[in-house]
Amino acid sequence: MLYQRSSSVVLGPTRYGKAEVRMVHVSRNGAEHALKDLTVSVALCGDQAETHLTGDNAKVLTTDAQKNAVYALARQHGVATAEEFAVLLTRHFLTTCPYISHARIAVEEYAWDRIPGAESRHSFVRGGREVRTVLVHADVDGRRTIVSGLTDLVVLNTAGSEFHGFYKDEYTTLAETTDRVLATAVDARWRHTEATPDVDWDKSYARARAALMTAFADTHSLSLQQTLYAMGERLLTQDERIAEVRLTLPNRHHFAVDLAPFGLSNDNEVFYAADRPYGLIEGTLARGDAPADPGAWE
Amino acid sequence: MLYQRSSSVVLGPTRYGKAEVRMVHVSRNGAEHALKDLTVSVALCGDQAETHLTGDNAKVLTTDAQKNAVYALARQHGVATAEEFAVLLTRHFLTTCPYISHARIAVEEYAWDRIPGAESRHSFVRGGREVRTVLVHADVDGRRTIVSGLTDLVVLNTAGSEFHGFYKDEYTTLAETTDRVLATAVDARWRHTEATPDVDWDKSYARARAALMTAFADTHSLSLQQTLYAMGERLLTQDERIAEVRLTLPNRHHFAVDLAPFGLSNDNEVFYAADRPYGLIEGTLARGDAPADPGAWE
Amino acid sequence: MLYQRSSSVVLGPTRYGKAEVRMVHVSRNGAEHALKDLTVSVALCGDQAETHLTGDNAKVLTTDAQKNAVYALARQHGVATAEEFAVLLTRHFLTTCPYISHARIAVEEYAWDRIPGAESRHSFVRGGREVRTVLVHADVDGRRTIVSGLTDLVVLNTAGSEFHGFYKDEYTTLAETTDRVLATAVDARWRHTEATPDVDWDKSYARARAALMTAFADTHSLSLQQTLYAMGERLLTQDERIAEVRLTLPNRHHFAVDLAPFGLSNDNEVFYAADRPYGLIEGTLARGDAPADPGAWE
Amino acid sequence: MLYQRSSSVVLGPTRYGKAEVRMVHVSRNGAEHALKDLTVSVALCGDQAETHLTGDNAKVLTTDAQKNAVYALARQHGVATAEEFAVLLTRHFLTTCPYISHARIAVEEYAWDRIPGAESRHSFVRGGREVRTVLVHADVDGRRTIVSGLTDLVVLNTAGSEFHGFYKDEYTTLAETTDRVLATAVDARWRHTEATPDVDWDKSYARARAALMTAFADTHSLSLQQTLYAMGERLLTQDERIAEVRLTLPNRHHFAVDLAPFGLSNDNEVFYAADRPYGLIEGTLARGDAPADPGAWE
Repeated sequence: MLYQRSSSVVLGPTRYGKAEVRMVHVSRNGAEHALKDLTVSVALCGDQAETHLTGDNAKVLTTDAQKNAVYALARQHGVATAEEFAVLLTRHFLTTCPYISHARIAVEEYAWDRIPGAESRHSFVRGGREVRTVLVHADVDGRRTIVSGLTDLVVLNTAGSEFHGFYKDEYTTLAETTDRVLATAVDARWRHTEATPDVDWDKSYARARAALMTAFADTHSLSLQQTLYAMGERLLTQDERIAEVRLTLPNRHHFAVDLAPFGLSNDNEVFYAADRPYGLIEGTLARGDAPADPGAWE
Repeated sequence: MLYQRSSSVVLGPTRYGKAEVRMVHVSRNGAEHALKDLTVSVALCGDQAETHLTGDNAKVLTTDAQKNAVYALARQHGVATAEEFAVLLTRHFLTTCPYISHARIAVEEYAWDRIPGAESRHSFVRGGREVRTVLVHADVDGRRTIVSGLTDLVVLNTAGSEFHGFYKDEYTTLAETTDRVLATAVDARWRHTEATPDVDWDKSYARARAALMTAFADTHSLSLQQTLYAMGERLLTQDERIAEVRLTLPNRHHFAVDLAPFGLSNDNEVFYAADRPYGLIEGTLARGDAPADPGAWE
Repeated sequence: MLYQRSSSVVLGPTRYGKAEVRMVHVSRNGAEHALKDLTVSVALCGDQAETHLTGDNAKVLTTDAQKNAVYALARQHGVATAEEFAVLLTRHFLTTCPYISHARIAVEEYAWDRIPGAESRHSFVRGGREVRTVLVHADVDGRRTIVSGLTDLVVLNTAGSEFHGFYKDEYTTLAETTDRVLATAVDARWRHTEATPDVDWDKSYARARAALMTAFADTHSLSLQQTLYAMGERLLTQDERIAEVRLTLPNRHHFAVDLAPFGLSNDNEVFYAADRPYGLIEGTLARGDAPADPGAWE
Repeated sequence: MLYQRSSSVVLGPTRYGKAEVRMVHVSRNGAEHALKDLTVSVALCGDQAETHLTGDNAKVLTTDAQKNAVYALARQHGVATAEEFAVLLTRHFLTTCPYISHARIAVEEYAWDRIPGAESRHSFVRGGREVRTVLVHADVDGRRTIVSGLTDLVVLNTAGSEFHGFYKDEYTTLAETTDRVLATAVDARWRHTEATPDVDWDKSYARARAALMTAFADTHSLSLQQTLYAMGERLLTQDERIAEVRLTLPNRHHFAVDLAPFGLSNDNEVFYAADRPYGLIEGTLARGDAPADPGAWE
């Protein structure tokens, strides 16, 4: 749907919303408290051409109202899981304003653990480094997709990784190796087959996270590409309700330092951990019978 | 093209490469030196299923060789513009390895100015904050797209901006205003109609950058959406060789501080510049006769 | 010691070195691997005026050689703890070059856990968010100080925190409260009484970290200042070999969102987690009989 | 002044305040607007032991009131320069609460330029990358210090830099060179001899910034240490009202890429710009007759 103002220029797809709403929700069961720590980003699409073309805002639900809704709905409904809360938000935005026909909710969730050894049941420490992510798309006509994921899960193998037999062009000088450190910061997202609310999302997430880590650990790797496939395959095979997974794996190079100038060997003991450049391996795996759904990932 | 290993899991699209190769190129004309400062990211696609499925790397051009090529080609051909250098790199990768059928080169370029008042002609200071970007896609069959752009061009109007007449739902509490500060960090990318090497890329970039800034400055704004349209329209109308522009504009809220508790007025003099959350307005404008090309932007 | 070149300008204190050497050390006990992941920064002082005044580098131990030494010493001696490795490095730099009279080694250490559920004993996942720190100063005359610490240990109490009864000036509008969320990112450093190698540094660190967390959790807080004192006191009383502690505690404000405009109460359930500004509380606690040592902290 | 609660633990120096108050001040001369963009951090010291020891906050000026004061004073007095505004704030905090005896104000200022080519006089673009800094300390007894500075002024020479004749230990492998790229991100701070309000702070800053840049550019460098001295000396000699300067110069290594494996020379044309590790050179220069004042810098 393109909106035209002059003969030469047309307005194509747009979206708008409030990004990075920081929201912490506390629930209490007597002295036993629980905590959800989320960053919520709202993006809406619909009949929005007029504000672009003329500045007439009559169809614009303000991003301020979007932010308010995030807080108000958390108060009214709680936050069971990031997935359920995101679905709830899409429902709200698709009904609160008739000029909105599509809602996209992206959530980041940060893990907190109880402080070990504390007497209090209201004390927490930020756990882990990785961030749990959720992306929900929903249309006013009822179509919905749910993509869960994680970012910055940093893993490393000190053995069980090789890299050799590669193609050699005129600029290839890399030495082949049968023993290297393999490290990456996993960025994984997986699309659920059914965007229904009856999934146990926390359990699904925990299983997916474990599958990614153990596949990384226990795959004897001939290339990071192979490891990527193994991780994706493990994810898909352990949960038939996941249709597709997208993995982005930076190859965080650990170079064995050349200590020969100092009369020292270095049998993969001492490494320089490089920042940049880095290899970057990206891949998608899907269940064979799962129809593609490119819009779910954007 | 999907590759299948088991009955249930198929390998979908993949790409791989060396990301964030930091390269500085110095050219000399006697004592008069010039400088190009780039970060180059390479991503390649092709007949790469085997490394994923079996770890057979015979068709893998190593990311290390990709990095070497960036440096070697800069040495051999210089770096006239980021656009030309990116095109050069795609040509190289599409010919150096028969298993590569598509190359994607993303470049960030950082501006340097001569140090004012210096006698030397070899002394530079990093200029501006924005980053110039280039994204080139090229297929082995000759198809090519070029997208130029910039990120983090931070602009602000202290007058000439209103926001009122918007839709009101139950969570709308925002006050309407006829005078607000409007600030954003422009992220703009534009696709060229012809991916040919005969464009004066530096001139094209300078004109696009100026168009974005002056359209922001001189548009009386009733919404950031309207300003976005004005910026895109200005960009397209000033250069008929640009087919399409995509703009991402965070609304960097500047809230007038309520000083009434202290018996002070605040007629838009003193503002709190908020970090998060922020509005986020995204839109695409295209020349009416330009065919879409979604792959060019990815 | 000041070095003079002209009548008007004198060179005061200087130091130089290689900063942020990224080093990963792997040790193996058969299939059982262990990992140390450090960032080491070296800074040296001494008879270095000539390179500043004339560019004569005869007394300059290059920062490149400093970097090499970090890797070579790790290879030769391993990395038992960050403290021991830092002491080892100071010994090296104070003997390898006669023009160096003082060495400062700063270390950041990143935690890794074994991947849970993995069969392999060579697979790790980055653990926690906080960074363990060490700062060692050593003089050629044998004087040495050791400061251990941690940064970015993020903790939060959902109950047990009040703030009222404060001084009120003309700009005080803050409401008093008997129930607020208290959150901070602990930056703590502690100076050891004896800079001797016979401390069990890992055990000392684990106990200090636990003391900080449990004191934060179990102190009923009337101000973050009070909590700071409690944390420092707990640290000092649980280990008599710690002489002094310095704490920097940002008050990561969590504001209960005002939902009254929407007809909703908010009894400390839904919070906005603010980025900036933030309160910042800094304090030092010492054992009564411990002499001060300001140079140890710089 | 140490406060004691138990026989074993004493409370040493403390300070507290509101950090990173983001404040934008707009002033208008008809259609001609001007803009100041500051981040202000307040830290106060005084009779504050009780809140630490008992949680009695009767002597605590809240950090919220400190934040309010930043905005209110900007409204009442405007922001002529960051230095004058910081001095104004110290005066306020030393008089508004009798339990505060020392105030420390740190300011970061971000540069904005008018948008070139814009018709409007209310449109701005963020300029430069460096940040102007101010640090003012003031005591209730009238003592005051003012330190001005800048951070992240990134400069680079493509010629006129050598490094050779250095000390060689067993780990020295660096090649000597008579032609290297020299690049740094200048972090400079300078202490004014008189903390009086009659300085033209903007002019003083502009001259200091120019002195640092031109000294960097026009010094034929045998070491970054020598360049540091030249920069500091230039700063001190061009303004007799500056007593002392502290410079922190990371050596942003640019390594000429070895292209010999590809049959290519590389006569300092193509460089790899490294992130980490980096050399770090720190030094202080002072006017010979200027008394030291270490507290001014903290």
